[in-house]
Amino acid sequence: MNQQINHSSIKLIIICFLFSIISANNPLRINNNRLNKHLSELSKFGNNEFGGVSRVAYSDADLNGREFVMKLMKTAGMDVHIDAGGNIIGTLAGKNNDLPPIAIGSHIDSVPEGGNFDGNVGSMSAIEVAQTLRESKHTLNHPLIVVIFQNEEGGLFGSKVMTSGLTELELELQSSSGYSIRKGIQRIGGNIDQLEKAKLKKNEWVAYVELHIEQGGILYNENLDIGVVQGIVGIKQWDVMVKGFANHAGTTPMDQRRDALYAAAQYVQAVHEIGKNTPGKQVATVGKIKSFPGAPNVIPGMVNASLEIRDLDGKKINSIYKNIKSSSENIAKNTGTEFKFKQTINIIPEPTNRRVSWAINQAAQDLQLSSKFMPSGAGHDAQEMAVICPIGMIFIPSKEGISHSPKEYSSPKDIANGANVLLHTVLKLDEQYSEEN
Amino acid sequence: MNQQINHSSIKLIIICFLFSIISANNPLRINNNRLNKHLSELSKFGNNEFGGVSRVAYSDADLNGREFVMKLMKTAGMDVHIDAGGNIIGTLAGKNNDLPPIAIGSHIDSVPEGGNFDGNVGSMSAIEVAQTLRESKHTLNHPLIVVIFQNEEGGLFGSKVMTSGLTELELELQSSSGYSIRKGIQRIGGNIDQLEKAKLKKNEWVAYVELHIEQGGILYNENLDIGVVQGIVGIKQWDVMVKGFANHAGTTPMDQRRDALYAAAQYVQAVHEIGKNTPGKQVATVGKIKSFPGAPNVIPGMVNASLEIRDLDGKKINSIYKNIKSSSENIAKNTGTEFKFKQTINIIPEPTNRRVSWAINQAAQDLQLSSKFMPSGAGHDAQEMAVICPIGMIFIPSKEGISHSPKEYSSPKDIANGANVLLHTVLKLDEQYSEEN
Repeated sequence: MNQQINHSSIKLIIICFLFSIISANNPLRINNNRLNKHLSELSKFGNNEFGGVSRVAYSDADLNGREFVMKLMKTAGMDVHIDAGGNIIGTLAGKNNDLPPIAIGSHIDSVPEGGNFDGNVGSMSAIEVAQTLRESKHTLNHPLIVVIFQNEEGGLFGSKVMTSGLTELELELQSSSGYSIRKGIQRIGGNIDQLEKAKLKKNEWVAYVELHIEQGGILYNENLDIGVVQGIVGIKQWDVMVKGFANHAGTTPMDQRRDALYAAAQYVQAVHEIGKNTPGKQVATVGKIKSFPGAPNVIPGMVNASLEIRDLDGKKINSIYKNIKSSSENIAKNTGTEFKFKQTINIIPEPTNRRVSWAINQAAQDLQLSSKFMPSGAGHDAQEMAVICPIGMIFIPSKEGISHSPKEYSSPKDIANGANVLLHTVLKLDEQYSEEN
Repeated sequence: MNQQINHSSIKLIIICFLFSIISANNPLRINNNRLNKHLSELSKFGNNEFGGVSRVAYSDADLNGREFVMKLMKTAGMDVHIDAGGNIIGTLAGKNNDLPPIAIGSHIDSVPEGGNFDGNVGSMSAIEVAQTLRESKHTLNHPLIVVIFQNEEGGLFGSKVMTSGLTELELELQSSSGYSIRKGIQRIGGNIDQLEKAKLKKNEWVAYVELHIEQGGILYNENLDIGVVQGIVGIKQWDVMVKGFANHAGTTPMDQRRDALYAAAQYVQAVHEIGKNTPGKQVATVGKIKSFPGAPNVIPGMVNASLEIRDLDGKKINSIYKNIKSSSENIAKNTGTEFKFKQTINIIPEPTNRRVSWAINQAAQDLQLSSKFMPSGAGHDAQEMAVICPIGMIFIPSKEGISHSPKEYSSPKDIANGANVLLHTVLKLDEQYSEEN
C-alpha cells in the first residue's frame, strides 16, 4: 500500500494538520441537558411496559414522534420539509447557500420492542448540533442538512429512496406496522407518485455523517469514548441444509446412525471457531437451527440451519465461507451426511470516507476523548448514502453491547461526547471543504 | 452371578437339554407361501401411495384389517372373541383345557405412513403357527391363544387394558385416527363399561411370546437370522433448555458472545459421543432442537432440545445421564451459558424371561438358524404383559434397519424363519410347562 502515499494523500495530511491547529481550542459545545431532555421526550412516543419503545415505521407512534421531531427542528431554526420518500429534511442556512450542504442525521423508527437509543441518539444530536450552531451564531459556510430517514429498521427504505430508489416489489412489502411500504410512505406525508424527485444526484451533499450507538460491546468493554467507523461491513447469508437419515432412536445402534443433527452440531462449532480463530474482526453466526422430524425418539434425518458472515472486506467473507464449507465437507464425510449451502443475502461492504473519518478522529482528539477505528457490524442508512457522497460514522458505547432491546443504554455523558464530536466534525468538514471550493 | 446357579437353574438346564433332544428333529414347519399370502392380503387394508400402510388404530382401515384377521383365525380353527378392551383373542383348544394357555401374537395397527411388516409379521405368523398345529393334528397340551393387541403404536393401549388398566385421562386421549381411546375401543367392538373384565390375573397365561421385526440394523448388518430378545429397554427423556444471551450477530465480537447454540452444539456432540463410546448397547439421542429467536442475524439466546437414553439396565441409563449432565456443566462454564434438564418420560426396563428366551434360542439352533441375544430398543406389548406372565420376543432382520416407514422390509425367508422359531418355541414351552404341571 506504500505506493499509494501520493500527492492527494500528502495534501490531505497537510489539511488535517492545519485543521487540528485551527480548531483544537474551539470552545463550542452542545447543550447536554437539552439534548437529554429531547431524548427523554422522544422516548414517550410508543413507550412500552418494558421501558423501551415500539415505534415501528408508519405506526401512530412513529407519526407522533415525527411531528415532535419537526417541531424541534423548527425551534432550532431550520426550514423543514418531507421529501417524496417520507424522509424529514431540515435545512439550516449557511453563509454560501450555493455550496452543497453538509448532512447529518439518523432515524427515529424502532424495531418492535426496541430501545430508546438506537437512531434516537443520532437524530436528537443532529438537531442539537444545528441548534448549538444557531444559538452560538456560528454560521457554517455550507448549508447544514439534518435528515431523519424513514423506516431504517425495516431495511433502509428512506435512504434507498434517495439513492437507488425503490422497486415495485419493495413498495408492496409489508412493514412491521402492518402497512405496505407504499401505504406507509403515504401515511407519513411522502408522495408515492413523485418518488423520483427524492433521488439525490452524485455529490449533491458534501458528506453525510451519522452518530449512532455502537450496538456492540467493544467501546464499552475497552472503556473508550468514541468509535470512528472505518466502514460498514458486508453481509452474506446462506440457508444450510444437512441431510442424514431419519431412524428409530431406540433400535438404531450409535455406530449405525447417519444423524443430521450430530453433523449440524459439528458445523455450528466449526462456524464459531473459524469465525473466532481467524485473525481479524469478522463475525460468523448460526442463528437458526431446526431438526426434522424433530421428535425426541427419532434420529434427525434433516437439519435446517443458517449461516451469516460479516466483514469489512468482501474477500475475507469469501475466504471464511470457503473454510466453513471445506470443514463441512469433512464433517459430512465422517458422519455419512450431506451439506447444501444456498446463498440468500449479499450486501457488499461499504468503507467510510478516509477524510471524513480523519475529521471525526481529530474532533475526538481535540475534545480529549479516547477513540478507536472500528467496523460497523450493523447496517445503517450511511451505507446507502455512500452511493452519492462521502460518509462517516461516529459510535458511542452501548452498555454491555445490548441493542434492539428495551435494555439498550448509553449514558448522558457518552451521548454528549458523541454529539460534541459530531458538532466538531461538522465544523472541520465545513472548513476543509470551504478551503477546497 | 455365580451364586445363582442353584437348584432351579440346574433343573432348568436339564429340562432344556431334554427338550433339545426331544424336539431337535421335529420336522413341523409353517406354510411359508400361505404366510406370505396372508401378509400381502393384510397390506391392502390402508395401503398408501408410498407402498406402505396408514392403518392407525380405530381407522376404517384398522376395522377392515381386524375383520380380515378374525376370518383368518376362524379358518385356522380358533374360537375368536373381542375382549372388553378391543383386543382380538383367538383360542385353539389343547389336550387339557384346564391348563393356562400359552399366548402368542402382536398387533396390526400401524403408525401414520407406516410399513407392511411392523406388527403384521408377528400377527400373521401367530395365526400361521395355530393353523400349522391344527393341520398337522399336533394338539398342544395347553390351549394356545393368539392375541392381536389393539392400538400398540399409540401407546400399548390394548395390552395395558389387560394388565394395569386405563385411566380416565388415557381414555380421553386423542388417537391418530382422530377418535379418543374411549370412542376407539367402542368402534372396534370393545365394551368400555366392562374394561375391568379384560384384566388378566397374575399367571393367567403360561407365557407370552411375540415375533417382531427388529426395527434396527443389527441382525441385517451382521447377517444373522434370529434375535433372542434379552429385554425391552427402559427409556428416559428430558427437555433440555440452554440459556445464553441473544445479541446482534453483526456487532457482537466472537469473543464476547454467550451463544446458546454454540453451547447446545457441544451438548449434542457430547450426547452422541458418550452414548457411542461408553461400553455397552445403550443409545443416547438428541432428536429435537430449535434456537430462539431463530433469526440468521441474531445470536441465539436460548435453545430448546431433547435428550433420550435407552438401555436394558436402569442404572446404566442413570450413569450415562450423569456423564452427559456433568459434560454440559463444563460446556456451560466455558460458554457463559446455563443448562436445565427436565425429565418427561421414565419407562423402566423389562427383562424377558430366561426360560422363554432359552427356548427361543434352542428353537433357532434346532432349525440351524444363526442367532444373537440382544435388547429390544423399541417398546412392545410384551413389556406390558411381563406384569402378568413370563415373556419372550423373537426378532428377525429389518433391511437396513428401517422401520416406521413404507421402506421397512423383511424377506419372506426371514419371516418364515421367524415363524418357525415361534412354532418351535411354542412346542418347547408346551412340553416344558406340561412336565412341570
